[in-house]
Amino acid sequence: MKPLVLLLLLTNAMSAQTKPRARDLGIPFDGTPGPLNAITDVAGIEVGHTTLIRGEGKLAVGQGPVRTGVTVIFPRGKRSDDPVFGGWFSLNGNGEMTGTTWVEESGFLEGPIGITNTHSVGVVRDAIIEWQARLGFMHQSFSLPVVAETYDGFLNDVNGFHVKPEHLVQAIDSASGGPVAEGNVGGGTGMNAFEFKGGIGSSSRAAGGYTTGVLVQANFGRRDQLRIAGVPVGRELNCEKWPPCWSRTPPREGSIIIVVATDAPLLPHQLKRLARRASLGLARTGSVSGNGSGDIFIAFSTGNAGAAKSRDGASISMLPNGRMDPLFEATAQATEEAIVNAMIAAETMVGRDDHKSVALPHDEVRRLMKEYNRGAGSR
Amino acid sequence: MKPLVLLLLLTNAMSAQTKPRARDLGIPFDGTPGPLNAITDVAGIEVGHTTLIRGEGKLAVGQGPVRTGVTVIFPRGKRSDDPVFGGWFSLNGNGEMTGTTWVEESGFLEGPIGITNTHSVGVVRDAIIEWQARLGFMHQSFSLPVVAETYDGFLNDVNGFHVKPEHLVQAIDSASGGPVAEGNVGGGTGMNAFEFKGGIGSSSRAAGGYTTGVLVQANFGRRDQLRIAGVPVGRELNCEKWPPCWSRTPPREGSIIIVVATDAPLLPHQLKRLARRASLGLARTGSVSGNGSGDIFIAFSTGNAGAAKSRDGASISMLPNGRMDPLFEATAQATEEAIVNAMIAAETMVGRDDHKSVALPHDEVRRLMKEYNRGAGSR
Amino acid sequence: MKPLVLLLLLTNAMSAQTKPRARDLGIPFDGTPGPLNAITDVAGIEVGHTTLIRGEGKLAVGQGPVRTGVTVIFPRGKRSDDPVFGGWFSLNGNGEMTGTTWVEESGFLEGPIGITNTHSVGVVRDAIIEWQARLGFMHQSFSLPVVAETYDGFLNDVNGFHVKPEHLVQAIDSASGGPVAEGNVGGGTGMNAFEFKGGIGSSSRAAGGYTTGVLVQANFGRRDQLRIAGVPVGRELNCEKWPPCWSRTPPREGSIIIVVATDAPLLPHQLKRLARRASLGLARTGSVSGNGSGDIFIAFSTGNAGAAKSRDGASISMLPNGRMDPLFEATAQATEEAIVNAMIAAETMVGRDDHKSVALPHDEVRRLMKEYNRGAGSR
Amino acid sequence: MKPLVLLLLLTNAMSAQTKPRARDLGIPFDGTPGPLNAITDVAGIEVGHTTLIRGEGKLAVGQGPVRTGVTVIFPRGKRSDDPVFGGWFSLNGNGEMTGTTWVEESGFLEGPIGITNTHSVGVVRDAIIEWQARLGFMHQSFSLPVVAETYDGFLNDVNGFHVKPEHLVQAIDSASGGPVAEGNVGGGTGMNAFEFKGGIGSSSRAAGGYTTGVLVQANFGRRDQLRIAGVPVGRELNCEKWPPCWSRTPPREGSIIIVVATDAPLLPHQLKRLARRASLGLARTGSVSGNGSGDIFIAFSTGNAGAAKSRDGASISMLPNGRMDPLFEATAQATEEAIVNAMIAAETMVGRDDHKSVALPHDEVRRLMKEYNRGAGSR
Repeated sequence: MKPLVLLLLLTNAMSAQTKPRARDLGIPFDGTPGPLNAITDVAGIEVGHTTLIRGEGKLAVGQGPVRTGVTVIFPRGKRSDDPVFGGWFSLNGNGEMTGTTWVEESGFLEGPIGITNTHSVGVVRDAIIEWQARLGFMHQSFSLPVVAETYDGFLNDVNGFHVKPEHLVQAIDSASGGPVAEGNVGGGTGMNAFEFKGGIGSSSRAAGGYTTGVLVQANFGRRDQLRIAGVPVGRELNCEKWPPCWSRTPPREGSIIIVVATDAPLLPHQLKRLARRASLGLARTGSVSGNGSGDIFIAFSTGNAGAAKSRDGASISMLPNGRMDPLFEATAQATEEAIVNAMIAAETMVGRDDHKSVALPHDEVRRLMKEYNRGAGSR
Repeated sequence: MKPLVLLLLLTNAMSAQTKPRARDLGIPFDGTPGPLNAITDVAGIEVGHTTLIRGEGKLAVGQGPVRTGVTVIFPRGKRSDDPVFGGWFSLNGNGEMTGTTWVEESGFLEGPIGITNTHSVGVVRDAIIEWQARLGFMHQSFSLPVVAETYDGFLNDVNGFHVKPEHLVQAIDSASGGPVAEGNVGGGTGMNAFEFKGGIGSSSRAAGGYTTGVLVQANFGRRDQLRIAGVPVGRELNCEKWPPCWSRTPPREGSIIIVVATDAPLLPHQLKRLARRASLGLARTGSVSGNGSGDIFIAFSTGNAGAAKSRDGASISMLPNGRMDPLFEATAQATEEAIVNAMIAAETMVGRDDHKSVALPHDEVRRLMKEYNRGAGSR
Repeated sequence: MKPLVLLLLLTNAMSAQTKPRARDLGIPFDGTPGPLNAITDVAGIEVGHTTLIRGEGKLAVGQGPVRTGVTVIFPRGKRSDDPVFGGWFSLNGNGEMTGTTWVEESGFLEGPIGITNTHSVGVVRDAIIEWQARLGFMHQSFSLPVVAETYDGFLNDVNGFHVKPEHLVQAIDSASGGPVAEGNVGGGTGMNAFEFKGGIGSSSRAAGGYTTGVLVQANFGRRDQLRIAGVPVGRELNCEKWPPCWSRTPPREGSIIIVVATDAPLLPHQLKRLARRASLGLARTGSVSGNGSGDIFIAFSTGNAGAAKSRDGASISMLPNGRMDPLFEATAQATEEAIVNAMIAAETMVGRDDHKSVALPHDEVRRLMKEYNRGAGSR
Repeated sequence: MKPLVLLLLLTNAMSAQTKPRARDLGIPFDGTPGPLNAITDVAGIEVGHTTLIRGEGKLAVGQGPVRTGVTVIFPRGKRSDDPVFGGWFSLNGNGEMTGTTWVEESGFLEGPIGITNTHSVGVVRDAIIEWQARLGFMHQSFSLPVVAETYDGFLNDVNGFHVKPEHLVQAIDSASGGPVAEGNVGGGTGMNAFEFKGGIGSSSRAAGGYTTGVLVQANFGRRDQLRIAGVPVGRELNCEKWPPCWSRTPPREGSIIIVVATDAPLLPHQLKRLARRASLGLARTGSVSGNGSGDIFIAFSTGNAGAAKSRDGASISMLPNGRMDPLFEATAQATEEAIVNAMIAAETMVGRDDHKSVALPHDEVRRLMKEYNRGAGSR
């Protein structure tokens, strides 16, 4: 193992502008995105990443190579400690999302959402508390942060515990609105999807009079399962044509964390409904949510500011159930597109033990869309 | 089997006034009840019963003896089709409560709650739809009524299907506010509790600035489990002293349906919290919610009238989570008292095959409260 | 309204053989079906239908026109009262499936599954009890049947309550193994899917060493949502080209009941996992599980015969979680194909008030598969 | 703040023998305990504690005073990595128990259970992973540990994050079978119950042919709520007579973590049933599970060793549902007694800012049992 050669701390703003996105390849996604086509189209949301890339070659536990990071999402921005209504859903619970019992019980998400690797959930959780304690941002006298994960052990020295409390603070410092960095950034740094390189992706929809955005940390899927806009891309670009594949070593498929945000004034039980719809967008990419997956979703609404702070009978708005269908559609659509965005933005990465995860080839995707009559302008 | 000898259709108002209640025996319940000490203390609630008692002697399936009925609860009265927010909880699901998936999904309880015997849930459910269709009271183009049950086969010809659609209509016709008939009435007619006679009971609390009421259909418990205000009444009045007991023939302990109502403006997820607290009141009577029990609870709030009818963004009130503790306490307390009220009101009944269920002896309860230093005026 | 002109009681066996199925049109479904490509490939399962079609023209509530029915599924055949392990999931709970609290609590499905129209759930439920009581087929001293529904009010006189107890008995009498009648039969008689004619459909997969089968009652979806094998069929065959559409009058999209069966020895918590995967197959057809949908799924395993009857410590088999992925895939695939099978089998129907639901045109589907490079032999 | 004056690392074995227990005071608990009347009566279970007590006087965040710790429970002993079947329940989710989505999904609890203070859940979680990685004890290529908490901020410098990874290792090193240390030990060090001193408590029952044990970390309740064996102890020993009380500063009531263990061969869905019964034992002590409580329960079975390791179709035992009632009763009884044991064992403690939590006075409890006719030998 070489000495540390590189430490990248990419912030949201630095990397977001130049990367291609799925729509640029002519994939005919349904629905109308917001201006940024990102979760930050929902006003007030801030996203930050700390990306940790250093070392190469053989795994030496505790030394590297390191391919990991932290992503943090502030529903009302990092300067607000005003809780949002929230709801969650576990499609396949082979993963962790801390803080969910209190989201379920109270109906509120009281702080930021952290996403990192499987074995760094604890450090990020406690670091959020420490940050909140320093700022007096605890809604109760204690805090129960929401931190989720996917497993990056194929590329990263996951048992080296390289994520430290300061990396959470750096991610918070970098958090901002605007375009969202995608691909090999933050918690998504070392992740893979359908045995291509995966990571962070985002998308949004304007629908039903509201904006609904999605951010994913995509780390799931076997190659042959991949479908994009209904086209069997994974079979066309199969393991023989586009190696390597490794879905059986280790046997785990991987996971996906999906964060759904909306400015529609939804109550907690309605946000659970929204979270459940992330499953339907995930299914469109070909996933069957394998046993090894931690497919855990959380939805929140930036509506009803101040609802948690009221001491006597908050007056709040509720979107009628009968008007939720456009939001359901938006969630499924934006989830599908966010996953493909993650893959399109991600670049080929070599990690521990020279494990290699190749980027989804853009030209091939373009070609296949045409071959299947699904190019831009198609129905 | 003799010919039909009796058909009783007791209405709420007819029977409610004269029966003794648990407090009259000096049992030191916690908390402050409302004026009626009944679920109808929550303004607007109407309760109706149809009580079916006819025949005696040997069971002849389809002929009787009949010891059963229907109870119906209207959250906003029978002339309103305005849904209420609702939430439910199953402590032990060996029972039926129809309509719960929609309560869970929508957050609304859209019609009355029916309670009857286990094998008559279907007829009551469809009859509610027929009644709603006739009045144009369906909130959607269809209806998914909430109907629950406990099993009265020890006393009643339960496989004779004696509850008919017209009995639901009669219960509706009889529904009113005011004192609630308790004991051997409505759905509770043939029910037992702790191997004494059970049935319908109700209680309420004024707490936290709101009124919270409970109605139970009590049909559960083994004799030795019974505790009243902490006193081991069931062991004092054991099966040898106060026969008969029959908890092993048939092996089922029985069940309890608990309806919790409040005028506090609770959201659906908060009402699930309230429903869960019914468990704690139930536990105080000694139950461990046996495998044979259908212990299913539903809570609703009469606050936020009109919330379901708004077509664009209902404006509603929410009690802060931090103010729910008095309501939790009220629910546990009123549940405990409603169960004891059911037993105090119920009278000894002989049913099919001369099965006999004796009333809880009032004088003995009075005596035991004193013996255990728990008489009126005790802490 | 004319007098009754027709009463059809189609049994499974009579109608199953001659209808075309989705695969015959060259749609490239994934996976390997069982010999019948139906839920009855899981050994022992029997399916029966009662189909009620009579009257035409203007709606006269209570008289017709009638376009409805009952479907019944026996996990171990109608002569067995041996419960199966079961688990359920509600993707969107705007519907009814009775008996689920006990399935959840006990882990067992103790009798047949009935499927009918929304307003006939009660009568079918109680009729199952009556049938069980007659045969001594109650696993406890009472019964809590599982009966589900979708809404056929667009074509049927749903408030006329035309399903009677004898129709459940007829469905039971007709129940058999072998090919499963699809389309306008049983509970599916008056149902629609994507504003084409829908109804009953089935499919199966041999995967992971076991057989997994699915039966759906499909009554959901807006026209523009429909995708088949990834092809946007609903946009190609849109409401202008293939009228009529009616998704906004009434506003409800409709629902789908999905029954998943497997002979793999799954425990109750594993069957919940399987039930949840039905969502993923549903998503492939384009559904977002609208607010108006009752999308409720139940899964059972025919393995572990006798487990419920043991009185002291049943010895049972459990498929390791690590071997469930092929079953997850099978469930998603068979669900997708069962839905398309329902639509391919269904024939154009005219119902109440001359409402017309047209069949999905087979030739157009064939044409579109080719146009999108998805014909037989495609990847 | 003085320099560190004391660092106590109490092991299980050191402190367990000499403390009085609730039964010694003549409290008439129901049921028959196992030989140790502790969770360790379930063969194979090992419990370890690290107790951190140092400093006194004014709070200096990061320095102390420290009144906290870690408790760890190994279902099959610390030398086994064989998972157990598990199930969990949240009565009131204002708390954290990590790892529950995977317990719910897989049906297995794959490692030890850790219990600590609210703000140290993360460090304990990651430390368990590190320990498992070192020993090769991860059941998958990653780990999702179960770590729960209650809040000790009244006595402890909870925002000082004094629990370190080595404290988890020390707790593991100290883990053993035999008597369980109770009161101010491990995770329970700084906890309170009913505004008396609380902490760790344990109890067991031999019932239904099996042993069922409970361990609690008790940190909940307002003074006036406390009931012991039905006697209103909290009102007798009220805040005026036995100060101090502090239930309104801070406003949180506190929480309770309850671990239920049995050697009965229960399946995961049956263990959820058992976990739910902990609520009923909790209720007997007077709790209504306040809004501020994290009342989260987990149950596991040491039966079916090897079930998770089988690669092809594990053969396992299942206790029939019909035989679970004695286990339900055992769980409620042992929960009630474990809570009182925690309070009886706990000693008066002075913590940060000289906050004082007094021990429940034993003589008064003895006296009250007699006064309420509930002394030893009573029914």
